[in-house]
Amino acid sequence: MSAIEDLVTELARLPGIGRKTAQRLTFHLLKQPAEDAGRLADAIRRVRDQVRACSTCGTLSDQDPCGICSDPRRDDTVLCVVEEAADVNAIERAGRFRGRYHVLGGRMSPLDGIGPDDLNGESLVARVSNGHGVQEVIVATNPSMEGDVTATWLQQLLAPTGVRVTRIARGLPVGGDLEYADGVTIAQALAARREMVE
Amino acid sequence: MSAIEDLVTELARLPGIGRKTAQRLTFHLLKQPAEDAGRLADAIRRVRDQVRACSTCGTLSDQDPCGICSDPRRDDTVLCVVEEAADVNAIERAGRFRGRYHVLGGRMSPLDGIGPDDLNGESLVARVSNGHGVQEVIVATNPSMEGDVTATWLQQLLAPTGVRVTRIARGLPVGGDLEYADGVTIAQALAARREMVE
Repeated sequence: MSAIEDLVTELARLPGIGRKTAQRLTFHLLKQPAEDAGRLADAIRRVRDQVRACSTCGTLSDQDPCGICSDPRRDDTVLCVVEEAADVNAIERAGRFRGRYHVLGGRMSPLDGIGPDDLNGESLVARVSNGHGVQEVIVATNPSMEGDVTATWLQQLLAPTGVRVTRIARGLPVGGDLEYADGVTIAQALAARREMVE
Repeated sequence: MSAIEDLVTELARLPGIGRKTAQRLTFHLLKQPAEDAGRLADAIRRVRDQVRACSTCGTLSDQDPCGICSDPRRDDTVLCVVEEAADVNAIERAGRFRGRYHVLGGRMSPLDGIGPDDLNGESLVARVSNGHGVQEVIVATNPSMEGDVTATWLQQLLAPTGVRVTRIARGLPVGGDLEYADGVTIAQALAARREMVE
């Protein structure tokens, strides 16, 4: 296959990018100065080679611990639990949360065979229990069926630690995806978080 | 800037890709096996390093002459003139045209300061005049104001050679873009091409 066809095929593998868009992007890259395409290729390669899950919170970063975990100005008393690293990004964009994060690496989904053992729940309990002063865990799983199930599981998992467990408000449209929400909605949802009671 | 931010920035420079889509693509690449991201980076690099304009027809290819110019089964008697290399791709997808191509590298656009000297017109006249038996030049410029001006210019440019000059039919929606047209529309437009007369 030709170099052009190869690139079209690789781009068309990306989510939301069909074959025509892939062709358009390919010819766009061909029209740009060679440095532009080089910078894109380099950026992809650096992300692939340098970005790893933070060993503390599980978010994706090119440092370990990540910039948030290693920032002394962040509030140690509040942990925000999210499904995916992309959700950390979404909440950081909102600019309202000053605590730390914990990335589950997914959500409870019995239909897909994803259960407690596939999520970073034990390390969350360990972080809450280790005496570093976590006073509140904000559950920021997605406002979906699976997100709800995951939230309930987290509440039960954390109950023995006695920590306060809250959940971000349903300012987010039900069935939506945290990753694509706008910053204002996320900020409101954080502000309106409510106590989880059994 | 972090590796993740770098890649988001580079992806967001692509046409039709906003910052949120760039973030979604970045996190998608991070979720995939490292080989997938590597293949994409390699494909971009190969396109950048290997693809050049064919010295005969001007289309973009990793061979020179390109696969179409060097294919002995193509019909030497018909030349299809297009604005951009991406248009060659679009017509090839239609699968109906068996002649050769000539890429102008743009279109007449006085407002953008693009005139005859910026387009590969002289080399087109040379190809038609060199005795290799071109009997018809199909003008497949876009069905836009600039495409019309370009077509008229080509007709005048080619008149001294005595070659038959035709233009693909307006089966394409006026104001549309050849690059994004579907194969059936392009095939019909080719079949319904008509003589250009002064």
